[in-house]
Amino acid sequence: MQIEYYPIGVVHSPFITVEGTPIQLSRARQAKGTVEVWDEYIEGLSDLEGFSHLVLLCHLHASRDYNLKVLPFLDTELRGVFATRAPMRPNPIGLSIVKLCGIKAHTLHIEDIDFLEGTPVLDIKPYVGEFDNRAGARFGWLEGARKQTEVADARFKAV
Amino acid sequence: MQIEYYPIGVVHSPFITVEGTPIQLSRARQAKGTVEVWDEYIEGLSDLEGFSHLVLLCHLHASRDYNLKVLPFLDTELRGVFATRAPMRPNPIGLSIVKLCGIKAHTLHIEDIDFLEGTPVLDIKPYVGEFDNRAGARFGWLEGARKQTEVADARFKAV
Repeated sequence: MQIEYYPIGVVHSPFITVEGTPIQLSRARQAKGTVEVWDEYIEGLSDLEGFSHLVLLCHLHASRDYNLKVLPFLDTELRGVFATRAPMRPNPIGLSIVKLCGIKAHTLHIEDIDFLEGTPVLDIKPYVGEFDNRAGARFGWLEGARKQTEVADARFKAV
Repeated sequence: MQIEYYPIGVVHSPFITVEGTPIQLSRARQAKGTVEVWDEYIEGLSDLEGFSHLVLLCHLHASRDYNLKVLPFLDTELRGVFATRAPMRPNPIGLSIVKLCGIKAHTLHIEDIDFLEGTPVLDIKPYVGEFDNRAGARFGWLEGARKQTEVADARFKAV
């Protein structure tokens, strides 16, 4: 079964290469960019400006292949790809929660961006706390990895 | 630009028809189901069992068409589709956070399911609080709609 999607727009981002793009932690915070939505979809943006955050689903176009075991940025052990947020996945769909700073015509001004310049956008959803937040969740291997990182390097400490 | 994806598995759910399927609020809580992952992807499930919650991205196969303005379940006014979580979207990708209860071989036992039986699964990601939670977010039209609903009907009160 083949599923076909068509981009509804594109991300404009300060990140041009995979190297140096934030790994969806505190480093991504405040990086600014835009989503340019194709004209034919503008009507679908109505009522979005009341939301402070958006869920962006994008096609990670730079991910041309995948492995089922990957070495995550935050770890030193191979992990199953579905237990990571690594971009190279069987269906390379990226999910990020970004801050919505404003909308002008077909341009969404956003913050906390961790997508590459030119990333095709598949869907925009409002971020809704009662759908998307889970209190008291456990984060598997990431919990240990985070502790390690905090010892070696303070950059994630404030998260 | 056409983007092609192939399902990595399928959702088994108690919800057979669109009518009666929860709308991703408290009613979805505790509904049980499974994700059956195709054999060729099983290796990618390693290390997932330490996470209490998963992000499921699915192809909403029952959504065959879309409008840019939709009447959300929780409202009485037409809203831009990208300001709603309605299933009929230009690229009908469903996003749900589900509880992971256990993994046996290629079967993930999950709770809090709001997908239809037979929904193709595109991606499984670990739910990670520091990536996916946003404190102090604003929820636009949904804030007013929720108040209305609480007056008319107590079912969302406990959320």
